Amino acid sequence: MLTTLTVQQFLTELAKGSATPGGGSAAGLAGAQGAALLAMVCNLTIGRKKYAEVETEMQAALDRVERLRLRLMELIEEDTRAFDGVMAAYKLPKDTPEQKAARSAAIQAGLKEATRTPMETLKTCVDVLELAPTVVSKGNPNVVSDGGAGVLSAHAGMMIAALNVRINLNAIKDEDFVAEQKAEMDALIARGDAAKAQAWAIVAERLGM
Amino acid sequence: MLTTLTVQQFLTELAKGSATPGGGSAAGLAGAQGAALLAMVCNLTIGRKKYAEVETEMQAALDRVERLRLRLMELIEEDTRAFDGVMAAYKLPKDTPEQKAARSAAIQAGLKEATRTPMETLKTCVDVLELAPTVVSKGNPNVVSDGGAGVLSAHAGMMIAALNVRINLNAIKDEDFVAEQKAEMDALIARGDAAKAQAWAIVAERLGM
Repeated sequence: MLTTLTVQQFLTELAKGSATPGGGSAAGLAGAQGAALLAMVCNLTIGRKKYAEVETEMQAALDRVERLRLRLMELIEEDTRAFDGVMAAYKLPKDTPEQKAARSAAIQAGLKEATRTPMETLKTCVDVLELAPTVVSKGNPNVVSDGGAGVLSAHAGMMIAALNVRINLNAIKDEDFVAEQKAEMDALIARGDAAKAQAWAIVAERLGM
Repeated sequence: MLTTLTVQQFLTELAKGSATPGGGSAAGLAGAQGAALLAMVCNLTIGRKKYAEVETEMQAALDRVERLRLRLMELIEEDTRAFDGVMAAYKLPKDTPEQKAARSAAIQAGLKEATRTPMETLKTCVDVLELAPTVVSKGNPNVVSDGGAGVLSAHAGMMIAALNVRINLNAIKDEDFVAEQKAEMDALIARGDAAKAQAWAIVAERLGM
C-alpha cells in the first residue's frame, strides 16, 4: 500500500525509474493534502466561542472534506493499480493474429479503466475546491494561509489528474468514449477553476495581498 | 519526524486542529513531490539506447533534482520547527513591562526565522522548476504527463510557500526586513512562473493539448 509507506519512502518510489507510482498517484496525494489543509482550518474554527455562529456550517464542511480526503487516499492506490493493468496488457503475447487482437482489446480496456481513475481523482479534487470558499471565508482567519494552501494543493491535484486523463485518451481508439471523457473533463475543470478563483479572492483579501 | 510518518499519518496530522504541521510543511511536500516526478522522468530516460544523446544532460538534471528533493524533505520538518518557535514565544509571560518587551522581541525574532524557512522552500521549488524545461523537452516522451505533474507540483509548492512568507511578513514590524523579503519573494516567483510557462508549453505540445 502506497499510503502506508513513509513520506520519504513514497517520494523515493515516485522518483524511481518505474511507470508506477506516477502522476496519477501524485494527483491523489495533492488532492488529499488540499482536503487535509481545509480540514485543519475547520478544526481550528470548531469549538471556539468566537466562531460559534459558523460552528454548524464548519462541522458540515469538515465531515464532507474528511470523506473526500479518505477517497483521495484510496485513489492514490487505485491509480497505480489501474495503470499496472495497462502495463500487464502490453506484455501479452502477440505471435498470432488472435493474440494480437486479444492484446489490443486488453490494452484498450485497460486504458479506459486507467482513464476513469484519474477522472474520479479530478472530480474529487473539484468537490474539495467547491468547499473551499466557505471554509476560507468563514473559518478562523489566523489560518487563512493554510486554507489558501489547501486551495492550491487541491487545484494542483485537479490539474495533475487532468494530465493523466489526457495522456490515456491520446491512446484510446474509441472516439465516442474519448469525446465523452473530454467533455466531462472540461466541465469539471471549469467548475474547479471557478471555485478556486472564488476561494483565492477571499484568501488574497484576508491576507491583504 | 514528519517524513518518517506514513503518508496516511502525515495527512492526518495536517488535518488536525493544531497550528503545525500546516501550509509550510505542505509546501515542502508539494515541492518534493515535484522534484520526485522530474527525477522519475530522468530515470525513465537514462540508460536507454534511444535517448543516449541526452544521457549526460539527464544524469546532471537527475543529480541536481534529487539534491533539491532531499532539501525539500528537510524543509518539511524545518518549517514546523520554525513555527513551533513562534508559538513558544507567544506563550512567554507578559506580566511586567520587561517581560512584555522580551516576549515581543522573541515573537519578532521567531517570525523572522519562520519567514526564512518558507522563503528557502520557495527558492528550492523555483530551482526545481528551472530544471523542468530540460527534463520535459529532452526526457522520455512516454512519461511527459509525469513531467507535467512535476511542474504543477513544484509550482504549487512555490505558491504555498509564498502564502506562508506573506502571513508571517504581515506580523513583522521591521519594515526594512519586510520590504527586502517581499522583493526577494517577488523576484523568485517571477523566475518560477517563467520556468513553469516554458515547461508547460513543452508538455502541452507533446501531449497535443
